[in-house]
Amino acid sequence: MDYCDAINKLPENSGNSLYGKNYLRTWDMSNEEIISVARGACALKAMRESNVSPKIFDSGVAVSMFSKEDSGMKLAYAAGCDLLGLTIIDMDKKLSNSNINENAAMASYMADTLGVCESDFIEKSSRYIKRVADTVEESKNNGVITDKPCVLNLGSDEDSPVQTIADLQYMAAKFGGIENLKGKKIAVTWAYSPNGTRSLAVPQGLVSLVTRFGMNVVLAAPEGMDLMPGTIERAEKNAEASGGTFAKVSSMEEAVTDAEIIVPINWAPFSFLEKRTELHAANLGTYIDLLEHELRENNKAFIDWEVTEEMMEKTKDGKALLLHDLPADVTDITCIRGEMTAQVYGANLSSLLAEAGMRPYVIAAMIILAKSENPRAAFRTIAERATKRYF
Amino acid sequence: MDYCDAINKLPENSGNSLYGKNYLRTWDMSNEEIISVARGACALKAMRESNVSPKIFDSGVAVSMFSKEDSGMKLAYAAGCDLLGLTIIDMDKKLSNSNINENAAMASYMADTLGVCESDFIEKSSRYIKRVADTVEESKNNGVITDKPCVLNLGSDEDSPVQTIADLQYMAAKFGGIENLKGKKIAVTWAYSPNGTRSLAVPQGLVSLVTRFGMNVVLAAPEGMDLMPGTIERAEKNAEASGGTFAKVSSMEEAVTDAEIIVPINWAPFSFLEKRTELHAANLGTYIDLLEHELRENNKAFIDWEVTEEMMEKTKDGKALLLHDLPADVTDITCIRGEMTAQVYGANLSSLLAEAGMRPYVIAAMIILAKSENPRAAFRTIAERATKRYF
Amino acid sequence: MDYCDAINKLPENSGNSLYGKNYLRTWDMSNEEIISVARGACALKAMRESNVSPKIFDSGVAVSMFSKEDSGMKLAYAAGCDLLGLTIIDMDKKLSNSNINENAAMASYMADTLGVCESDFIEKSSRYIKRVADTVEESKNNGVITDKPCVLNLGSDEDSPVQTIADLQYMAAKFGGIENLKGKKIAVTWAYSPNGTRSLAVPQGLVSLVTRFGMNVVLAAPEGMDLMPGTIERAEKNAEASGGTFAKVSSMEEAVTDAEIIVPINWAPFSFLEKRTELHAANLGTYIDLLEHELRENNKAFIDWEVTEEMMEKTKDGKALLLHDLPADVTDITCIRGEMTAQVYGANLSSLLAEAGMRPYVIAAMIILAKSENPRAAFRTIAERATKRYF
Repeated sequence: MDYCDAINKLPENSGNSLYGKNYLRTWDMSNEEIISVARGACALKAMRESNVSPKIFDSGVAVSMFSKEDSGMKLAYAAGCDLLGLTIIDMDKKLSNSNINENAAMASYMADTLGVCESDFIEKSSRYIKRVADTVEESKNNGVITDKPCVLNLGSDEDSPVQTIADLQYMAAKFGGIENLKGKKIAVTWAYSPNGTRSLAVPQGLVSLVTRFGMNVVLAAPEGMDLMPGTIERAEKNAEASGGTFAKVSSMEEAVTDAEIIVPINWAPFSFLEKRTELHAANLGTYIDLLEHELRENNKAFIDWEVTEEMMEKTKDGKALLLHDLPADVTDITCIRGEMTAQVYGANLSSLLAEAGMRPYVIAAMIILAKSENPRAAFRTIAERATKRYF
Repeated sequence: MDYCDAINKLPENSGNSLYGKNYLRTWDMSNEEIISVARGACALKAMRESNVSPKIFDSGVAVSMFSKEDSGMKLAYAAGCDLLGLTIIDMDKKLSNSNINENAAMASYMADTLGVCESDFIEKSSRYIKRVADTVEESKNNGVITDKPCVLNLGSDEDSPVQTIADLQYMAAKFGGIENLKGKKIAVTWAYSPNGTRSLAVPQGLVSLVTRFGMNVVLAAPEGMDLMPGTIERAEKNAEASGGTFAKVSSMEEAVTDAEIIVPINWAPFSFLEKRTELHAANLGTYIDLLEHELRENNKAFIDWEVTEEMMEKTKDGKALLLHDLPADVTDITCIRGEMTAQVYGANLSSLLAEAGMRPYVIAAMIILAKSENPRAAFRTIAERATKRYF
Repeated sequence: MDYCDAINKLPENSGNSLYGKNYLRTWDMSNEEIISVARGACALKAMRESNVSPKIFDSGVAVSMFSKEDSGMKLAYAAGCDLLGLTIIDMDKKLSNSNINENAAMASYMADTLGVCESDFIEKSSRYIKRVADTVEESKNNGVITDKPCVLNLGSDEDSPVQTIADLQYMAAKFGGIENLKGKKIAVTWAYSPNGTRSLAVPQGLVSLVTRFGMNVVLAAPEGMDLMPGTIERAEKNAEASGGTFAKVSSMEEAVTDAEIIVPINWAPFSFLEKRTELHAANLGTYIDLLEHELRENNKAFIDWEVTEEMMEKTKDGKALLLHDLPADVTDITCIRGEMTAQVYGANLSSLLAEAGMRPYVIAAMIILAKSENPRAAFRTIAERATKRYF
């Protein structure tokens, strides 16, 4: 692929509204900004395939603040930052840490990016990430730091912009461009997992994002598996504005029928997450265990929410594109019954891995767009310099 | 700021007495050496602000050996090393590890620096750091290693040279030069913290260092909150030699009155630390808990050793420079009663963060001075090369 | 040392049979391939000593997957990868992790190398490393990844190729060339350790490797301290083919008599490891503890299998080269009775450390040979470029 096309469409100078910005939620970004990130990622991937190094930092630090282990996103962040020449430093800080401002400010001294992943607590998680971003802003305004690091949400209670933009770009690549996603049916469907306590970030983020590009979006979930208040309204509004549609149904089968893209994904209901956040704030660990146990017991009623080969048959021409943010809970591989069967997983594994492989490029593109006043020129310099990544 | 001035005053060739040296305690360094580190840090900060990269290593390893988590200093070390092109490798080794020589030697094979932080055990901690340094020296002498890594004390039972030189340079920047610190009153004062078990490294290191530059130093602490034997004598001798003064008082109020710089800081009394070291050696964990509990109970008598706005009022023009090595224990933010009130903390936060922000530059300067035979030429090469840190 | 000689003997183009390969066991490699790795390591060491940087990657990721802590090999991997310009990312994955394929594939997206250390489970460990390698291969074939990372076995149940090739090259350097090892007597001898549960990788790997270069190899162990089935047969076959000899004896004294190289090393008998693997698979943790306790009790019968000064006296001219993969269990230093006395350890420490110091170069050489189509040209480019590692 020729990456010059993508580069020529990147914003320059005053056109770069992402300069100096953070990435907290896609719904704080314009469509044009989202497309710029996707284009940047696309160009970076093509460069990699041509052994061209996009290292724009001679030195620099990328701090990662994960409240719990997430190997996939952590690796993606590390790989994306390394591509640009940044060194990864882990600063494992929990939400419970009392002095967030101080921690965030300390992390930001010499950091070029702060990647934050904190998804366990409804509202608190978002507020935490926001507070990190605000502290960094203040430090910059007060002259404490010279360069303002870019804050990246790598997964919160609300959204996971790296994952969803990676998915958008991955679909775009499959269907020949973001504009071609218009009118395509995508099913985002709850799926059974014995774990059952996953965050809402990805399903919420997906229906909030893809409805902006004219897709026909169907969200399917069993009764009571609600997302955060406001999500459905946002999706509906987006769909209307973009000329797409949005529907919520309570059957996986209905959702996937004739879909061109399906996204089976387990999540915990909002009411459970809210309750768990309360118990956590009250230091009632034992009751959290009980609450989680009850959720898992209840979920057993929905053990048939599994993507099987029969389910795949119902999709458009029986060959919908299957997306998942990984790790997936796979029947017979990671558990007795999961989100999809081993056959479905096996048949789609290469594609799932390629999908996940978009994340480092999205992260790197986000950083360049936030740190370069003129990203088009920065990418051109990279392309012209054509430094080999290795020899 | 023009950094060429600072560079022109750096030592060259045989004038660089720091070449091949380690940094264990400031009182093993000459005033000129300390000033060189401060100058180097100052030049590096100015370079950063001009987007000039001081990367002098094409590749290389900075090993960090922290006996317990200290995010602030660990990040500072990582950031300072990264600035020079070194990769950070964590080698979390405890003092209890039986074969220190082997560990230290293994760490030093390909390392350019070894940053060691071990502060819990009176005398043992220093001996540990010293043993690491000695092992490295032997490995060099025996031809086991080609390049001798520089050993940095990032915090021991005795001293924290990175912190104290960073503070010295920060004060110097505020008052227009180290020479202008002469005659300024600085109060290093014990302050209450519910934790109460912090090491003596910073208060000891500070009174040992700043007395060498003609300052009028007052150390304040409640009865019995003693530092290590020899500290007071050292401070007195230094003050006399430098034309400054040193006094020990038992009232925070008295100490801060008319002070131009105040440093509220909690520490555990020497007698407690000595006792804890004994119990630890005897594997009496339960009694350590009890000992710490007793200390905390006793400390409650000194809950008023807190920097309040009223206390600040008593300082010179009511606006003394407030220093702290962070994290601070702040009333209403991190605890119910702490070293300072939230108001005092809030009003001084930008400055506290800027103070902490000096540490990576001090570390980087220490490394260049220890690794370059001719640091003045090395800095000049950096300045002339003027590689942009990022574009 | 002039490194050009070594470079001129490296393979080029179609002659590089290691291109695109992994390093799982030395017995999957030809003698010529092993010698190429040793030569590459030798050249890299000489470059380091001349301050020449072999950084061939402008950016890139080296993932490390250690199932348990091994500071020595982990540091060696980090140092070796850093030398080439790769950033180390830790991905601590246990064998118990259910979805190895997904983990391995995720790790390989943007990785240039995957260093895997997993030695606890007989057969399972090797199968695990093999599966990582196979997954990477598949990902490459399916177009999921652009560059295939090189998989390095950093220690399995079967072999530890980095350690053994480092030892081979270290001996070669001591005796003036690999060809000079022919006819030299080497004793690989079991030695007592209070721990007693070490893996078979190093003793198996050593007798499998050094028998290929015409050495007179004696393996000594108490009755019942068996290696994996097939090891003795492999060693015998190798010895015959290379014009060397191989003998198994049950006395340390007999083994070390007149030996020019001795390798005291503790290992657990194969039958114990097999049993432990079974118990582990059955989730019978308590019985594993019991099994290990029994082994340690039984081992006490062999407490005299210790390299003492008297034992050293029996070696050729009383001054055999002592090898150990470190950390060693040393009497009076790390334990009450161990593999060797403190005197023997002390007298040989510099050499032991220098031996361990070969590992980073072996790792770096392995990577260059697997990633460069034409390693001779790559090394020549490095030599001609002559970039200083630091100034």
